[in-house]
Amino acid sequence: MDDASHPLHPLFHPRSVAVIGASADPHKIGGRTFRYLKTHGFPGEVYPINSRASEIQGVPAVATVAELPGPVDLGIVIVPAAGVPDTVEACAERGLRSLVIFSSGFAEMDAEGGKAQERIGAIARASGMRIVGPNCIGIMNVLTGMWATFTGSFDYLPPIEGSVGLISQSGAFGVYGSLCVRARGMGLRLWATTGNEVDVDVADCLAYFAQDEGTNVLMAYMEGCKDRDRLVHALELARAAHKPIVMLKVGRSEVGARAAASHTASLVGSDAVYDAIFRQYGVHRVHTIESLVDVTYAAAQGRLPAGERVALVTVSGGVGVIMADAAEEAGLPVPEMPAPVQAKLKALIPYAAVRNPVDTTAQFLNDLSLVQANLEIILAEGGYDALVIFLSSVGVNSRQMAELRPPLAELRRRYPVPPIILSGTFSPEQVPPLEEAGFLVLEDPNRAVAAIAALVRFARTFGAEGGAAPPSPLPAGLPPLPRHALSEVESKGLLAAAGLPVVAERLTASAEEAAAAAAALGFPVALKIVSKDIPHKSEMGGVLLGLGDAAAVRKGFAGLMARTRAAAPKARIEGVLVSPFITDGVETILGVQRDPVFGPVVMFGLGGIFVEVLQDVTLRIAPFGEDEAHAMIREVKGFPLLRGARGRPPADIDALARALSLLSAFAAAYADTLETLDINPFLVRPEGQGAVAVDALIVPRAAAGKG
Amino acid sequence: MDDASHPLHPLFHPRSVAVIGASADPHKIGGRTFRYLKTHGFPGEVYPINSRASEIQGVPAVATVAELPGPVDLGIVIVPAAGVPDTVEACAERGLRSLVIFSSGFAEMDAEGGKAQERIGAIARASGMRIVGPNCIGIMNVLTGMWATFTGSFDYLPPIEGSVGLISQSGAFGVYGSLCVRARGMGLRLWATTGNEVDVDVADCLAYFAQDEGTNVLMAYMEGCKDRDRLVHALELARAAHKPIVMLKVGRSEVGARAAASHTASLVGSDAVYDAIFRQYGVHRVHTIESLVDVTYAAAQGRLPAGERVALVTVSGGVGVIMADAAEEAGLPVPEMPAPVQAKLKALIPYAAVRNPVDTTAQFLNDLSLVQANLEIILAEGGYDALVIFLSSVGVNSRQMAELRPPLAELRRRYPVPPIILSGTFSPEQVPPLEEAGFLVLEDPNRAVAAIAALVRFARTFGAEGGAAPPSPLPAGLPPLPRHALSEVESKGLLAAAGLPVVAERLTASAEEAAAAAAALGFPVALKIVSKDIPHKSEMGGVLLGLGDAAAVRKGFAGLMARTRAAAPKARIEGVLVSPFITDGVETILGVQRDPVFGPVVMFGLGGIFVEVLQDVTLRIAPFGEDEAHAMIREVKGFPLLRGARGRPPADIDALARALSLLSAFAAAYADTLETLDINPFLVRPEGQGAVAVDALIVPRAAAGKG
Repeated sequence: MDDASHPLHPLFHPRSVAVIGASADPHKIGGRTFRYLKTHGFPGEVYPINSRASEIQGVPAVATVAELPGPVDLGIVIVPAAGVPDTVEACAERGLRSLVIFSSGFAEMDAEGGKAQERIGAIARASGMRIVGPNCIGIMNVLTGMWATFTGSFDYLPPIEGSVGLISQSGAFGVYGSLCVRARGMGLRLWATTGNEVDVDVADCLAYFAQDEGTNVLMAYMEGCKDRDRLVHALELARAAHKPIVMLKVGRSEVGARAAASHTASLVGSDAVYDAIFRQYGVHRVHTIESLVDVTYAAAQGRLPAGERVALVTVSGGVGVIMADAAEEAGLPVPEMPAPVQAKLKALIPYAAVRNPVDTTAQFLNDLSLVQANLEIILAEGGYDALVIFLSSVGVNSRQMAELRPPLAELRRRYPVPPIILSGTFSPEQVPPLEEAGFLVLEDPNRAVAAIAALVRFARTFGAEGGAAPPSPLPAGLPPLPRHALSEVESKGLLAAAGLPVVAERLTASAEEAAAAAAALGFPVALKIVSKDIPHKSEMGGVLLGLGDAAAVRKGFAGLMARTRAAAPKARIEGVLVSPFITDGVETILGVQRDPVFGPVVMFGLGGIFVEVLQDVTLRIAPFGEDEAHAMIREVKGFPLLRGARGRPPADIDALARALSLLSAFAAAYADTLETLDINPFLVRPEGQGAVAVDALIVPRAAAGKG
Repeated sequence: MDDASHPLHPLFHPRSVAVIGASADPHKIGGRTFRYLKTHGFPGEVYPINSRASEIQGVPAVATVAELPGPVDLGIVIVPAAGVPDTVEACAERGLRSLVIFSSGFAEMDAEGGKAQERIGAIARASGMRIVGPNCIGIMNVLTGMWATFTGSFDYLPPIEGSVGLISQSGAFGVYGSLCVRARGMGLRLWATTGNEVDVDVADCLAYFAQDEGTNVLMAYMEGCKDRDRLVHALELARAAHKPIVMLKVGRSEVGARAAASHTASLVGSDAVYDAIFRQYGVHRVHTIESLVDVTYAAAQGRLPAGERVALVTVSGGVGVIMADAAEEAGLPVPEMPAPVQAKLKALIPYAAVRNPVDTTAQFLNDLSLVQANLEIILAEGGYDALVIFLSSVGVNSRQMAELRPPLAELRRRYPVPPIILSGTFSPEQVPPLEEAGFLVLEDPNRAVAAIAALVRFARTFGAEGGAAPPSPLPAGLPPLPRHALSEVESKGLLAAAGLPVVAERLTASAEEAAAAAAALGFPVALKIVSKDIPHKSEMGGVLLGLGDAAAVRKGFAGLMARTRAAAPKARIEGVLVSPFITDGVETILGVQRDPVFGPVVMFGLGGIFVEVLQDVTLRIAPFGEDEAHAMIREVKGFPLLRGARGRPPADIDALARALSLLSAFAAAYADTLETLDINPFLVRPEGQGAVAVDALIVPRAAAGKG
């Protein structure tokens, strides 16, 4: 990190550190922290502060923050909770540039702790002093030996230098994750646990780490985020810097609970929104610690595949099938070897399967010179973007490994581009030389394929020219939202003004008017009662579909009015809406919900059972471009219906994508005043014929009682 | 294995072994095999046979099988493919009781090899000599030191004694799997690779291993099976003996390809049938080597949970959420701690989360005496059937582990029943003592939860009183299937005779007859043209629905006839079927397909997009009981529709389950002559009102051109 003016610079590159509550006992929290800073090469000043000792572990101590002898970039606060706010105040007065607060007993405990935490936050904002914690386990810059942490685990399995940036909201997980990183032979560069996040949060660290030159992959554990803009900014920075983010965001079960509710509004469970954002920004979300570490490991090597063509090579046919199954599941293409490659491979090992997976049979292992020849053909002429090679148990055979390593290393030198994962059982000592030669080693073949799939997704995210496409532009001069709930007609009017395709329709006041309107619009038509007092029109028989002639329209008009008056005598009826009855559209639902943290979230799903029974919807935060809308459309399980299943023609997916992007721009423009927006159904007609909103309802925040 | 009369006894418990093609070079295939038998404690006679040496590795050799000095239970054949059939012949003549053939170059190579293999099979059948292979890597009885294998990998990582039975069709996988077992600290008892399976197949070995007293879990790798009855017999034996089977059956991608086809018939991809059988017999199917080993490991300890209530204990709140998410995904209930338990836990650690997951916070680790107290409360009063305890990185802290081990072991002694998995990072040396104390150790918490879920499923399978329920009985005296394709009326007639609920209907020849029939059946009715020459009636407008009065029926009859004559002038029309038009049923599809290996397979799915777009179907091989039918019904994604989603009443699921079981009995009874059977739609009416087949078609094998 070159930019010393960055607000987090004093935290991760302090020139001097004060340990407030340093202890003489090197196994106590305040003692271990001080000891770590003195013994891991940190080149700056380290000042112990202890009111009852003039010396700590051989270093002269001062009694108070005020007595610090020089300027201090970072203070580490290890005092009982009750004393923390005053200590923070004193640090601000003394001009400390940043703090890490280990102490717990704040918002995580009770309301009083919450108030104390608020006071700390206020001091941070007023002074500009940046604060990590409270209730955290600390931060580290492994490169400079700046270990501002008290965890005892690092005495047993200390982090080593490397290129991984690890950020964890949970202190316990931060420690555990760093041990997993170390156990996998990886090194850390920057490490942060953010705890209660009174000031610095996971997003701030992601943003800072993304800009750190020596960090090439970001591994994060997150429970939640309170600030949309900080998170989006961080994800944008990481994407622009081509730094993969591997994210373990916990709390999926929430989704299950929310999804159980039947109304689409409840589908915007907040975990689902995180899922949407991560997908949108190319963050690789994982659900297990194992895959968090696997994908970080694969990405840390710095090789991303140029495309998505994967070659699978195996010494066991059965494992070839396992890997092919896994690749199909992960959506990775496993294209056949080009014919000349197949011929050459056959010439080498006559009984080999040479399509892809390439099953070299055990012959490969009986004559290791075949390895080089075999792989060379595939690397030179196969045109693959990544390889997984299953070596079974060769990795425990030290004699064979000694023979195999040099030709493998030579191949890697000559073909340095595609990531290559070696899979199988390896003795621990066999792994580092293979990694140094430029291979990845992942024992389990399914996990190897999953890691390649993650790399392919990162490459796709980073490969998009100039980042994500912008949302479709809105016309100028759209009016503000009224404060009252909009009627269907008003809702559709506003959407039409924004450029969304809305069904042609006329509000009529008499049977004759309705018949005339129907004749003008073209038969068959639909009739619908219009009244703000009747929200669920179809349930009380307020909708008639497929009326084929003027007589049916007249009769229908009269029937609608009679039924409505009977069912809801006090309802104010504005009239009857006449619109063309469209039968060639696929029924979809477009919606916008307000997430308390992330603002407007756009939902897309297919109508009927897809949303209501299968909860088959997908989300994005607004706004987004048509490319993202296309990705959304392809994500739902019902997508085959749009592509033209069941003998239907393919639907106008481009029109649908345009509408979704435009809707997202609309939602973003009205972010402050829009509560919910439902377009249901939005009919997507056959290719080239567009799509139309048939019904829509806009609810402003004010009207929802939240303005 | 006590039963010395079992046909596979000579293979796994030979008193004497002849190595046909033994070599003096202990690193050649014939030399290593001989060496293994001499050096791993095998107590029986081992005879080397080599035509060009009078002595092999210090043991006098004979030149031919005929010259063998004594009776031989097992011969190992290590001669070039061309000489194998004659060698097998000689072995049969000499009276050898069993053979393992390593040699390859048979059916896996070409047609000629296939013929040679057939000759070997014929000798086996004629002589009663049981044969494993050819093209296999051998078999082992680790307990007796009977290593009848040539793999060099066992020189590096030899199997140790234990309770796992491992069976692999692939030799390469057999070796790899046994290395994974060893690497996980587990021991093997019996091991077999079956190769080309000219005689003994995976199912035979499963059946034999299931009856072996010292084997308590079966780990299998399978590519395919040629004999339904042998497999079903083996699975029934294992279930009866309460031996868990963990199965890696490869070749899922097939399903993907099949599922792409639109007709339901193609949904019976053979891999999907394996899936069905495994589910039906309580086999735990896995898709990764890692989970194969995990579940085997968990099951090998021999503790199965008495129920499915899981307690999750964690020192990191975040990992608690991860485990809760994983449990929900696996369908495992994580019920709250009883109130008194919560109170006691709170008293111990005030800041702990005590519902479930129980988050002890890091306090647990600062004061390890809390561990015993904490877990004791949960074990004594929680009433849980299994526990997962996440210990983060305690397992790398040798000091803490030394302190923690004795109280943990003591707890295990006092509460020996529920399986307990410890999760987190452990130094390798920490694992064996914990395992000896009766704990399972699985680093990754998600994998720990998945393993518990597998144990719960095994317990459920073994816990069913008297095994699976029998299928519903068929009435006596059902007629044989005709050889011609049955009409809809004939199809429904036969199903009705079998006891399946079929819609009331009448075949009518005139508009007047139709109107009278409708009046008798009750309006509204459906009309359908009946003609064997028109298979897709609705596509040519041959079906009318919801006719509400006699006039509509008369008009409909005439219209149907006119349309049919216009569309298919040569079609022989049998009449028009009148039936009640049922509007309160959930549309389902019941079907039977013939699988070439497994015979009749029963399919269940919901109608419409569920089958056609989402391929949301489930299968079982026939026959099965109503309990299994209930399980099928709950497996489909559309199940909420039957339970009463979208404001509908719950459907009569019991009636549906009865029909499925009866259909399975029907399919089994007609297994030899039935090609396909489709009931579509099968309408499931509201609870208590039953279900009815509205349309059905039975195609006998003869009519499908396959009889």
